[in-house]
Amino acid sequence: MQMSTRNLFKGTVKSINVGMVSAEIVLEIAPGLEVTGIISKQSAERLGIEVGKEAYAAIKASDVIIAVD
Amino acid sequence: MQMSTRNLFKGTVKSINVGMVSAEIVLEIAPGLEVTGIISKQSAERLGIEVGKEAYAAIKASDVIIAVD
Amino acid sequence: MQMSTRNLFKGTVKSINVGMVSAEIVLEIAPGLEVTGIISKQSAERLGIEVGKEAYAAIKASDVIIAVD
Amino acid sequence: MQMSTRNLFKGTVKSINVGMVSAEIVLEIAPGLEVTGIISKQSAERLGIEVGKEAYAAIKASDVIIAVD
Amino acid sequence: MQMSTRNLFKGTVKSINVGMVSAEIVLEIAPGLEVTGIISKQSAERLGIEVGKEAYAAIKASDVIIAVD
Amino acid sequence: MQMSTRNLFKGTVKSINVGMVSAEIVLEIAPGLEVTGIISKQSAERLGIEVGKEAYAAIKASDVIIAVD
Repeated sequence: MQMSTRNLFKGTVKSINVGMVSAEIVLEIAPGLEVTGIISKQSAERLGIEVGKEAYAAIKASDVIIAVD
Repeated sequence: MQMSTRNLFKGTVKSINVGMVSAEIVLEIAPGLEVTGIISKQSAERLGIEVGKEAYAAIKASDVIIAVD
Repeated sequence: MQMSTRNLFKGTVKSINVGMVSAEIVLEIAPGLEVTGIISKQSAERLGIEVGKEAYAAIKASDVIIAVD
Repeated sequence: MQMSTRNLFKGTVKSINVGMVSAEIVLEIAPGLEVTGIISKQSAERLGIEVGKEAYAAIKASDVIIAVD
Repeated sequence: MQMSTRNLFKGTVKSINVGMVSAEIVLEIAPGLEVTGIISKQSAERLGIEVGKEAYAAIKASDVIIAVD
Repeated sequence: MQMSTRNLFKGTVKSINVGMVSAEIVLEIAPGLEVTGIISKQSAERLGIEVGKEAYAAIKASDVIIAVD
């Protein structure tokens, strides 16, 4: 499946922190570069997210904030 | 200013595509790794976004979608 | 590819309205039930979105607003 | 009240899963077609969301991701 | 209609900037306090948004970024 | 740091409600005018959010829903 999200990063699952409704997933997408996503607990289980496994972080361009110093 | 967004990537502006209301900004955040953001045209002008300049991409963890093959 | 978005609707492209930076896509996901998405113009071209073709609408649960009368 | 969200689906509440801060609501918007939303626990209580009650799912077009096989 | 969005501000339309696909609306929600929203051009027309008219800005709590100096 | 978010409100922290993964922060941005944000628990700790302290609420224009009676 191809998605319309302009940002699609392939990475490895570094950690998972599960709450009652949501779960926090950290992916390493390049050496020292991590992306954190919060998804529903049910989705984390459905996708079989495990530390060490490959996964993607997909982000809509309209959800990216640009900042400057 | 420190932000609550869990994802903050420092990069260099690679390109800007300006429309009537919004502008599309591409940042290189690591060798060969780009992030695309769509912000309002007015914000792009206010922040003085220019190709070659340093900028950050900030993304809320709840805006990240996780996918697996 | 499987996504963490809790909502994934399969449908048929009913219309496309393209602007300078973004494009508005309408999918019919059930008889008389339409979903409208705004994606970047570049993504619409990359995905080869055409009227009559099959496509999916994916929506994060945290992006759904619940309302009552 | 009329909203700017392009997507407004009327449905029936099928289930509610409440956490400490957020609550997961599932609406049936057409036979066999469900939408899941995560709203704050406080909003679920304020709106009096109950299984079997009518409710709407409202989604901004810019929050819809389009995908193709 | 009552919405699950935790943030609902009543205000007066100060300006409208219309593009090909989207429209930028500025509301004054308190003396000197403005909120800017980008909605689809079609929604702006459907809602009859005009300068000087009353309107609301609704924002999900999960879309609010918190920052500190 | 300057952000592309069109909406940046300075306020005082009125309350914090912490869950297992996320935290709900309420800021007073004008007399009687409050903004509620849900951020990750880790971010609330990292930013040192405390009742009575100054903080900002930043909101992308594309995350604002406009409604009319």
